[in-house]
Amino acid sequence: MRRILTLFILTLMAIPSFAGRTVRLQDYMDAGSGRDAMPAIRRALEACRRSHASVLELPADTLRILSEKAYEKYQFISNNDESLKRIAFDLEGMKHFEVRGNGTTLLLTGFISPFSLEGCQDITVSSLTVDYTHTFHSEATIEGVGENALDVRFSGEYRPRIENGCLYIYDENLIKYRFASLLEFDVQKREPALYARDYWLRDSTIPAEEIDKGLFRIHKDKLTGKVGNILVFGAEARYNPAFFLSDCEGITLRGVTLHHCGGMGVIAQRSRDIELDGMVIEPAPGRMISITADATHFVNCSGYIRMTGCRFCNMKDDHTNIHGLYMAVDEVLSPRKLSVSWHNSGQYGIDFLRKGLRVEIVDNRTMVTIGHATVKNVLRLNKKAAEVEFKEDLPEGVAPKMVIAADDAYPDVLISGCDFRSNRARGLLLGSRGRIVVENNYFHIPGAAILLEGDGNYWFEQSGVRDLTIRGNVFEDGNFGYLNWGAACISVGSGIPDRKGSEAYHRNIRIEGNTFKVFDPRILHLYSVDGLVFRGNTIIPTETYPYGGNTREAFKVSPECKNITIEP
Amino acid sequence: MRRILTLFILTLMAIPSFAGRTVRLQDYMDAGSGRDAMPAIRRALEACRRSHASVLELPADTLRILSEKAYEKYQFISNNDESLKRIAFDLEGMKHFEVRGNGTTLLLTGFISPFSLEGCQDITVSSLTVDYTHTFHSEATIEGVGENALDVRFSGEYRPRIENGCLYIYDENLIKYRFASLLEFDVQKREPALYARDYWLRDSTIPAEEIDKGLFRIHKDKLTGKVGNILVFGAEARYNPAFFLSDCEGITLRGVTLHHCGGMGVIAQRSRDIELDGMVIEPAPGRMISITADATHFVNCSGYIRMTGCRFCNMKDDHTNIHGLYMAVDEVLSPRKLSVSWHNSGQYGIDFLRKGLRVEIVDNRTMVTIGHATVKNVLRLNKKAAEVEFKEDLPEGVAPKMVIAADDAYPDVLISGCDFRSNRARGLLLGSRGRIVVENNYFHIPGAAILLEGDGNYWFEQSGVRDLTIRGNVFEDGNFGYLNWGAACISVGSGIPDRKGSEAYHRNIRIEGNTFKVFDPRILHLYSVDGLVFRGNTIIPTETYPYGGNTREAFKVSPECKNITIEP
Repeated sequence: MRRILTLFILTLMAIPSFAGRTVRLQDYMDAGSGRDAMPAIRRALEACRRSHASVLELPADTLRILSEKAYEKYQFISNNDESLKRIAFDLEGMKHFEVRGNGTTLLLTGFISPFSLEGCQDITVSSLTVDYTHTFHSEATIEGVGENALDVRFSGEYRPRIENGCLYIYDENLIKYRFASLLEFDVQKREPALYARDYWLRDSTIPAEEIDKGLFRIHKDKLTGKVGNILVFGAEARYNPAFFLSDCEGITLRGVTLHHCGGMGVIAQRSRDIELDGMVIEPAPGRMISITADATHFVNCSGYIRMTGCRFCNMKDDHTNIHGLYMAVDEVLSPRKLSVSWHNSGQYGIDFLRKGLRVEIVDNRTMVTIGHATVKNVLRLNKKAAEVEFKEDLPEGVAPKMVIAADDAYPDVLISGCDFRSNRARGLLLGSRGRIVVENNYFHIPGAAILLEGDGNYWFEQSGVRDLTIRGNVFEDGNFGYLNWGAACISVGSGIPDRKGSEAYHRNIRIEGNTFKVFDPRILHLYSVDGLVFRGNTIIPTETYPYGGNTREAFKVSPECKNITIEP
Repeated sequence: MRRILTLFILTLMAIPSFAGRTVRLQDYMDAGSGRDAMPAIRRALEACRRSHASVLELPADTLRILSEKAYEKYQFISNNDESLKRIAFDLEGMKHFEVRGNGTTLLLTGFISPFSLEGCQDITVSSLTVDYTHTFHSEATIEGVGENALDVRFSGEYRPRIENGCLYIYDENLIKYRFASLLEFDVQKREPALYARDYWLRDSTIPAEEIDKGLFRIHKDKLTGKVGNILVFGAEARYNPAFFLSDCEGITLRGVTLHHCGGMGVIAQRSRDIELDGMVIEPAPGRMISITADATHFVNCSGYIRMTGCRFCNMKDDHTNIHGLYMAVDEVLSPRKLSVSWHNSGQYGIDFLRKGLRVEIVDNRTMVTIGHATVKNVLRLNKKAAEVEFKEDLPEGVAPKMVIAADDAYPDVLISGCDFRSNRARGLLLGSRGRIVVENNYFHIPGAAILLEGDGNYWFEQSGVRDLTIRGNVFEDGNFGYLNWGAACISVGSGIPDRKGSEAYHRNIRIEGNTFKVFDPRILHLYSVDGLVFRGNTIIPTETYPYGGNTREAFKVSPECKNITIEP
């Protein structure tokens, strides 16, 4: 009898339950899942698809995930790097579905992306942590400073080697982690070192020798740093963002923590209605850097974008960037036809042009919209080039080097109750033409806390705010990093070679009820703005850092700006 | 009236004629086609598809082709390198079609493949030449020989630069051409230098300095060479073969000349009935090297393979290689189910496993087939791994590290009236189990002229001839290159760790009526062969080169061979 009962229980365990349309990953795990949970994840996701499950429950445990048996896809991911990628959770096409983490940690190894959502609707990912056994960047402590040289020692997770007189970094599986830049971080303050700048490297290496066991002398012109600080070897590319969303609708990440990933934390393109609630990005214990690029990034999105109660720190790039994409005109083929191409390799393959899309045609010199047209047909030639035919004649004056962008729908953005600090570069790069509210956040940013970017000649990112409210925030001691990361705490950085255009690029901005605790006197730097009110803010000078800039102008307004009210 | 007539003629010219279902490329060319014929090629191929044309006529001219507007596809190409490729003539899915070259030269620039045929039937490409404005490998003249160093000067088409103390090579468009090896070529004999070996490089560069304008001193342990000879910097990867055939049937290349390409000349996989008639592969004037890898290569093919009246020389690898592919067993999941994966990165993504396929299961140690099974289902996990379920129980003893291969159909091979010489490495690597006839060819090869390869532990290439006739050929002064390129003029090189298996790997070989003019006494080196007749051949010793080997055994037969008749 006991034997029969045991058999019965075993049988029950072997048949995964679809009750309540909930699939439990545990029911698909086996003896090998401890080494690599990927096969179990595939089996469980397959069961979810088959049974139209609404929830995949993860065990409240650490899941080790290897790339060997992961999903695979070639992906063009805006502002990250295209490649044939391995993916752990590939949710393509899924709808009305939740990955419920229950506090699970996904611990990945090697070049693999945690989540990919393409063409998804109504998806929630909740209560989980993402980390990697080995980071895509590398960290070393500066032990000596010489002339154009530093002596550095890597922490235990890295396997540095000298080959051919140059430094290469591997992990314990002999996966090579290529690097392309160096940046010094202050080990006490746990942020970029005061006014430290990036050193860019050629061909992903640096001349070096091992001068003592585990101590490497690296050589580069003007290279310097402070003994005891951390030198971060920036990852060569952004192959594996944590969450990639493309053509999605209604995506919620709730209670997700990212300790690491090899690219951006959340990168969404051509998607709408995205909510990040209580997301945390911070390094794992013992590391200086969290993720290797921007915390979040939204490209050609619409509907709403909400970030509430988030806490981001120590990324190797900005906190967010919300913008559209410009493709450049290479040739006017006929009054209704253009040959266009991408001029920023981070945009290759992002096929935003589609039949019926309303586009604006923008003069790349003035960034003024010279007219609109509706796409009739697109012939995609390859990831870089396309021919596009319009329903109407193009506006007079359209010419090579001008740019086109989608001009149909922009996201309304709410960024509220978040804590943004200690990353490389800038805070929020805001470029939506929808309604943007940034309220009750804390900022401690080495560059500009809020930057209005956009240009048609270098990054080719569409910006131009139309309704921006910045209220109730605390900006504390920003602009302590490389001076090129922003001209003031809130500033315009758009690339507009000719500012004599008939219209301002940014419009209708309200900055009210904020507190600026600043050692750097530069509060607001404006150009190409029409309509701005700065009112009811508190400015409290500090002496946290020695100010290293040239100008002490708190407010700088270029003459072409209109309707500017500043009441400090 | 004259005006009307002109208008009428112009109208006629503007409407491409589909008469006789021939499309003329010229009718699709415009003012920009001189700079880049690619848009015209796309328009013409589109017209061919639309009109079901049977011929695309090329103009008897030079067509410059850039990659900018070329077709694009991610391709897994056996024994070449996977990547997202640009393609000039993408004939995917076309049937009963001829690209008639009329003597046209396709002159390509950069990383672009000339021809891609996937799922094609009854296609002929005739009378054209393929060349590139810049080669994927690089060539320099040795001007000085030092200790572990050579001083080299590149010819005008290369733009060498020192960066970070290392050498990099660009073209005039600043495209970087990475290199992974060095090999010396004899400038008088125009072939690999006597017993020269490859120097393999790490991370695609070599420490160097510019010691005089245009003169570069490169450093590597034991590096040596002869002043006046050419040092060839081998291309890092094989991205752009000239003709890629996958899942094709009935493909004829007639009168095609390849001066260059970035990979193999013709690489066919999972295809049948392929004829190369009068194909020439030779370097363009002023260059030492023709193409950067094997002249031809056939993987998992069937039907017939014919090479007649061809002339191949100065490739950076073998003349042909005809074989199948082994996937390795990683885990026996059940009596009918295996977890399998590729262990040679050049085979990633070659999905030969399909429902209904008969496979052999081979002991990787003895290379003996231990049984067969028929595929019921395949779950492709990614480019490297799959799970395969069989209709029958697997043979007893199947275990991890054993290998599986298709065992349903093999090609009959005819190689006749060809001239093979002066390449890197070997001549013909013959691994089909169909009928193979090699007759009336000329061989002057630095390694083995005819090599029987195959192994289940390193390259994972299926071989094992069953019916091989070698007759009426002239073998002249082979094995003058690196001694590891073959143990004799005709030899076995299969990787069989344990030769005590119950069956020989190669069977039924006739070598008759050939002439061996040889400075190297090693004619025939056999192991794991059952059935061989060497009869009626003429051996003429020469003193063309000083022999550098250790053994003077003309015939060497390992004890496990059976039924061997040698009548010199």
